[in-house]
Amino acid sequence: MKQIFMDNASTTKVDPDVVKAMLPYFSKIFGNPSSIHHFGRNAQKGLNQSRKQVAELLNAKDTEIIFTAGGTESDNIAIKGLAYKHKKKRTTKGPHIITSTIEHPAVLESCKHLEFQGFVVKYLSVDRQGIVNLKELQDALSKNTFLITIMMANNEIGTVQPIQQIGKIARESGIAFHTDAVQAIGKMPIDIQAMNIDLLSLSSHKMYGPKGIGVLCIKKGIKLEPIIHGGGHEQGLRSSTHNMPGIVGLGKACQLARQRMNKDTKHIHTLRDALIKRVLQIEQSYLNGHPEKRLVNNAHFRFTGVEGESILLGLDEQGIAASTGSACSSMKLQASHVLTAIGLDPLEAHGSIRLTLGRENTEDDVDITTTALTGVVKKLRQMSPLWSK
Amino acid sequence: MKQIFMDNASTTKVDPDVVKAMLPYFSKIFGNPSSIHHFGRNAQKGLNQSRKQVAELLNAKDTEIIFTAGGTESDNIAIKGLAYKHKKKRTTKGPHIITSTIEHPAVLESCKHLEFQGFVVKYLSVDRQGIVNLKELQDALSKNTFLITIMMANNEIGTVQPIQQIGKIARESGIAFHTDAVQAIGKMPIDIQAMNIDLLSLSSHKMYGPKGIGVLCIKKGIKLEPIIHGGGHEQGLRSSTHNMPGIVGLGKACQLARQRMNKDTKHIHTLRDALIKRVLQIEQSYLNGHPEKRLVNNAHFRFTGVEGESILLGLDEQGIAASTGSACSSMKLQASHVLTAIGLDPLEAHGSIRLTLGRENTEDDVDITTTALTGVVKKLRQMSPLWSK
Repeated sequence: MKQIFMDNASTTKVDPDVVKAMLPYFSKIFGNPSSIHHFGRNAQKGLNQSRKQVAELLNAKDTEIIFTAGGTESDNIAIKGLAYKHKKKRTTKGPHIITSTIEHPAVLESCKHLEFQGFVVKYLSVDRQGIVNLKELQDALSKNTFLITIMMANNEIGTVQPIQQIGKIARESGIAFHTDAVQAIGKMPIDIQAMNIDLLSLSSHKMYGPKGIGVLCIKKGIKLEPIIHGGGHEQGLRSSTHNMPGIVGLGKACQLARQRMNKDTKHIHTLRDALIKRVLQIEQSYLNGHPEKRLVNNAHFRFTGVEGESILLGLDEQGIAASTGSACSSMKLQASHVLTAIGLDPLEAHGSIRLTLGRENTEDDVDITTTALTGVVKKLRQMSPLWSK
Repeated sequence: MKQIFMDNASTTKVDPDVVKAMLPYFSKIFGNPSSIHHFGRNAQKGLNQSRKQVAELLNAKDTEIIFTAGGTESDNIAIKGLAYKHKKKRTTKGPHIITSTIEHPAVLESCKHLEFQGFVVKYLSVDRQGIVNLKELQDALSKNTFLITIMMANNEIGTVQPIQQIGKIARESGIAFHTDAVQAIGKMPIDIQAMNIDLLSLSSHKMYGPKGIGVLCIKKGIKLEPIIHGGGHEQGLRSSTHNMPGIVGLGKACQLARQRMNKDTKHIHTLRDALIKRVLQIEQSYLNGHPEKRLVNNAHFRFTGVEGESILLGLDEQGIAASTGSACSSMKLQASHVLTAIGLDPLEAHGSIRLTLGRENTEDDVDITTTALTGVVKKLRQMSPLWSK
């Protein structure tokens, strides 16, 4: 049975060239880049090169790249780091953050944590397609607002936000703008200058790099408090011995993303559109999220009268990996906060599945998956008390 | 020219068996262990196995093992996590932490951060050999003390603390006991039960595992607040997609440490003693730290009339990697806080170097290094205004 991986939003297979770039850093160039001897200096070269490769993908400066352990940590440092700096600087009551209701838990939970500490957080609503309302954003701005944090593209439904415009609003109001670009990275061009982004989080393992490594890009002039204290690595913002194989792997993944983005996105776009077209032929099936403003690799469906989790298990039996939402919350029972935010009722939310494509998927994968999905939905409906044609 | 690595306290070469264990997790078993499909479930098996391997090395339960990005993060979660939990629970004024003056910056800076927030920290002094005074510890205990954090073995001078006794004092007083075991792990037997340890930090890359992964071992019943918020991984204490290759590598490194500890420590002990004996034949050379209660791989010397950094560069020219202290602070100019704490004056502190051995070092390495070191010290003294025999 062919194993088909259609869950590239949860993680990706590491590219062979990335593994090849990492390998020497385990047992050959194994020095600690903070050491001043030649083992350390050799490692330092890899660190500098990787920083450059990441910076180039984002149109940032090398010095604006901070390596972290992943997207979650990057989000935490950006949001809490700015909040704690702000708290130190000013004594204004009710310092204010603006975010959206469909952010990743790394952003939402960081914001909730700050609410316990006296910060005020405005959660912008989104429309039926998952787009934040710019008018609502404008109205929410106050003299106490010091941070707007809106994700570039949603991890569940794939909706891409009008980041450049949000950045412009933030810039014009003198407010820092952070975006979680974990899902967007490598799937659409990102330019922190043109998009008016002050802080950007990314994760390596969503872009064919290794797990356990990420980046926070911090525009020059933005000051943060660290949340991890220690030896003072990464400009004092992220103390810890550098994860050299991870850093080098992420650098390589960024270089490959730059080189391959056009070709890969074209290939994936074609497959994804074929997938959507064929799945929507299943009766009472619907696409969640925005029809056009969505990540090139994301397809998110709901089916009347069936449970998403049952569909997932049915596909899994046939070797096909899909997801009901984010992997983080796959063990939890609540309806997705994203699907609830776009106005789905609990039954609709629980009847949804996400298929996210990657570089290696083929037309054949789309054929097999749509055939399997059609069969699984049909079978489940035959057993479902919620289904009456 | 033979390259000789005598800086194993800064980092270690990853064991080939560890790399071998990790490799499948990049591109074959690449699933996210939080996913419920078979790609995820296969990754989950590796996660469970690694947790077991780490637990076995510490005589802990699987459920007491939390994976982090490294020793620094583990220290931060232990200290701040307990402090914030304590703050929530009680309103007593001046909640109290006891630590020592020679801790790693990850501990010291976390404590300083808490001092800014109203916590009271007592820094225990150490004697000339680097051992904390148990009488001073007893005297420092107060009804507000909720945490004792003392490292198992020092990262610079290698002094091993009377951990079991410190643990006993903490246990008898109902105070949580955390130890940074980053340097000790794999070099001496550790048993969290017998040693009365509630919280233990370790890092993979100091024990022939990969960089970027560590563990906080948390005894059942100890409750912490997370410092990174997000998807709720690792019992809610460390949100982030699991770094599977790193986790599997660390697990394998722990398994190897258990299997090899007796043989490795015997080999390294012999080499280290030969190294110390020969280096101390250099006139006006001294061993820093405790003559017996020290890590098996650590040799730390000072030489009258020369700069440690100049010695290091002289050795580096001959292919030998040594260190003046911790890699974290190798770019800084201040005298080491550890050497200052054991009573060395700035000249003595700046005239010190650390040689730390590893599994792969040989008698030959010791010969070459001692000969080189003797020559370098002699040459530097000929140029030194501070040296007059």
